[in-house]
Parts: sequence; structure tokens; C-alpha cells
Amino acid sequence: MKGSLLYEGKAKRVYHTTDDSGRLILSYKDDATAFNGKKKSEFEGKGRLNNLITSKVFEYLHQQNIPTHFIEACSDTEQLVDQTTIIPIEVVVRNIAAGSITRRLGIEEQTSFTPPIIELFYKKDELNDPLINDVHAYHLTDINEQELTFIKHQALIINEHLIELFRSAGLDLIDFKLEFGRRTDGTIVLADEISPDTCRLWDSQTGKKMDKDVFRENIGSLIETYENILQRLEENVCAK
Amino acid sequence: MKGSLLYEGKAKRVYHTTDDSGRLILSYKDDATAFNGKKKSEFEGKGRLNNLITSKVFEYLHQQNIPTHFIEACSDTEQLVDQTTIIPIEVVVRNIAAGSITRRLGIEEQTSFTPPIIELFYKKDELNDPLINDVHAYHLTDINEQELTFIKHQALIINEHLIELFRSAGLDLIDFKLEFGRRTDGTIVLADEISPDTCRLWDSQTGKKMDKDVFRENIGSLIETYENILQRLEENVCAK
Repeated sequence: MKGSLLYEGKAKRVYHTTDDSGRLILSYKDDATAFNGKKKSEFEGKGRLNNLITSKVFEYLHQQNIPTHFIEACSDTEQLVDQTTIIPIEVVVRNIAAGSITRRLGIEEQTSFTPPIIELFYKKDELNDPLINDVHAYHLTDINEQELTFIKHQALIINEHLIELFRSAGLDLIDFKLEFGRRTDGTIVLADEISPDTCRLWDSQTGKKMDKDVFRENIGSLIETYENILQRLEENVCAK
Repeated sequence: MKGSLLYEGKAKRVYHTTDDSGRLILSYKDDATAFNGKKKSEFEGKGRLNNLITSKVFEYLHQQNIPTHFIEACSDTEQLVDQTTIIPIEVVVRNIAAGSITRRLGIEEQTSFTPPIIELFYKKDELNDPLINDVHAYHLTDINEQELTFIKHQALIINEHLIELFRSAGLDLIDFKLEFGRRTDGTIVLADEISPDTCRLWDSQTGKKMDKDVFRENIGSLIETYENILQRLEENVCAK
């Protein structure tokens, strides 16, 4: 059962559970934000879509033996997860240049990165989530060198699996953001969400943007786009 | 003899030599710039001071067996160096938090970094010299993993030597910027300058800023400050 509110973020609320299981409930909100909260809106049904899409993706990653915090979707907008303490680092994996990296480093959009580029950003709203390097990460968080190596390695493996999953749904995975959490026993697992809010997905045939860039750039219906992603994943995951 | 102009930067001009030695002449200008060129001024005698200070520092590093491009000062404002192609990465070593890192990462000024923090910035004026990570460096420049490891290792050794040199001149080395160049045979050596334009130096007794922050923050005479640094280094190097 859902207990007291532990934390409210831009896209989700986190609740305790009333049993002593050490589990949490993530409740997905209908809010959309971009440019570090400077652009905001609400889309009825977005919370449901991101919850269901994230659940599909994490179920798939479990099948691939990736350890995560995810247990199960427990309602249309909520999921049950293991309690972890989120490491305040956003791990971004880039297969193709798009978004901030093109402006920041003057790299042409659609440039392929082989191997993929991993970037770390310090999760700190008041600093606009700045890019950091490994040594910054050791200084700013409780992570050590061995753990950061593990996280980057996991990010690359997850990238391979997600490329495969989305390819079979007719989507190219351009880039995405991961967050990791530390369990009470110290081990680190994939946490947070994986959805069109946190991935850039382009239709493999048409190149059409099928993710939060629809909202950032006002180029279509966010809800229709996310519904389409969920439908493709359901067809694909069911067919397996 | 000085030949044709090869390149003009914000602080120096680079000339060919008229012989076939493959050497270059660096001519230090009196210009001071800060905040990526947004603040500019000219100080008569600054070019001479940075040339003589850099020459003292590079001579000292040679004694410590650090390979550099430096050959000798050939006039008050000029020095003879081996020709290298500058790798477009600024390597910043930080012993104590000051300047941009305090604002960028919310780290309190005067925080000690043990081990020192190394940061890489992509030398590109039109992008405001953005912070990059190792994988960006491989993508943006011709450097490889082994070479970047070498450069970082050199930077830490140079840091140890410079801490020692400046300590004996009554100065704390807070942070500094290095550039490396590639010789025609492919080997990488320390290049560019090491001066109060590229180092933060605080008086060990009083904590007074003795570097370009005097100009950035309008807190004293740049020329008197740089003269003082040169004098301390001459007394110290001569005493050795």
C-alpha cells in the first residue's frame, strides 16, 4: 500500500510503502518540463504512458539480466521498485549527435559516435546539471573509481539492449539518460525511468522525432507520439 | 632570425625562423584579456614579464627532466621554441578550488583537492572553450587514449615541480593551465607558456592574489604584481 510521500521530482512522486519491505512506489505525473524546467506543461495521460513504457523497457532489461530497481507496474501510473538512494549523476549515452552536444561542442547533428559517447552530468537543478568528468564525480558524490567503471560498463551494455529493443519497434535510439541507485547493501542498480522523456527516438523509416523533442520543439502531439511508442513496444514485446 | 608570422593569438605572436631549423619564435604581447576576450587591456611591459617568467619556469622544468618545446629566451619579449602543432586541449590542474569551478560545480572557494583535479577544455573561442571528457577529446582531436594518459600523467608531475618552485618563492600554486604540442616525429611535449596569466598564485603568507585575477577583479597593479613574481623567481632560481 502507498505510504507517505518521500520525494517529489519534476516528473514523478516517490512514496514509501506501508509494509516493511523497503520498497517504494513511483507515481508518474502528467507534467512535462524542458530546458531545466524553463518550459512547462501538463498533458493528460502522460504519466500513464511513461509508467507503462518504462515498465515494458525495464521488464525487457530484466530478461537480459540487467539488475534494476524495478519490480512491477502496480497501477496505470504507478510502479513498485526497490528502495535505492539515487546517485546524483545523469549518465548520458550518445549514439548519434543531437541536442545539447551539437551546440556545446560544435558537432554536426547526426554525426555517428563509434564507440558511443558517455557523458556524466551532476544532478543539481540550481547549477543547471553541469557536465562533469570522472574526478569531479569522485569529489561531488560518494561513488568510487570501481563503481563508476561499473556504471559506464552497464550503460554501454544497456545501450546495446535498448538499440535492439527499439530497432525491433522501428525506432533508432539516438541518445538517452540513465540514473543509478545504491541499494541498502551498497550495490548499484539501474533506477529511475526509461521513456520518450529520457530517450531520443527517431522513426527508422522517416527519421521523424518520437520523443520529448516533440514538446521541446513544438512539432506535434506529445500524447499521440508517446501512445505510438507504447503501442509499438507492446506489439514487439508481445510478439517475442 | 625571425621570419614570417605563422599565427597570432590573444597573448602571443608565433613566427617562423629564417633558417631551416624547424624552430619558432614566440613573441609575447602586452595585451591582457579575460573572460574569453570580453575584457581587454594593454599593459606596457607585460609581454616582457610573461616571456621572462615563462623562460625561468621552463628552464626549471628542463632541470627536472620534463620534455618541453622551450629552447631559450632570445630577447626581452621573445623566446625560441621547437616547432610543434598545438593539441587543441587546455589541461587545467587544480590544487585548491578557485575561479570557474566554484561557480560551475558549487564547490566552495579554497576547498583542497587531493588528488588534484584535472580538467580538459576544448580550445575553441567560438564555443567558449567548453569542458570536455576523455571520449570527447578522442572525437574532437587527433589524440589517442595512450597519449591522453601520458598528458595527464605529465600534468601531475609538472604540478609537483611547480608547487615546489613557487613554494620556494613564497607562493601557493592554486591552479594552472597547460597546453601540449606534437613534434613532427609525433611525440608530445609541454608547450605554450606558464606565467601569472596561466596560473593562480597566492602569496603564501598573506593569501594575496598574485596573478591575472588582479586584472580580472581590478584589485591591484598587474605590472607590479608580475614584476614581483619575476623577482621572486630570479632570486629563488639564482639561489639554487
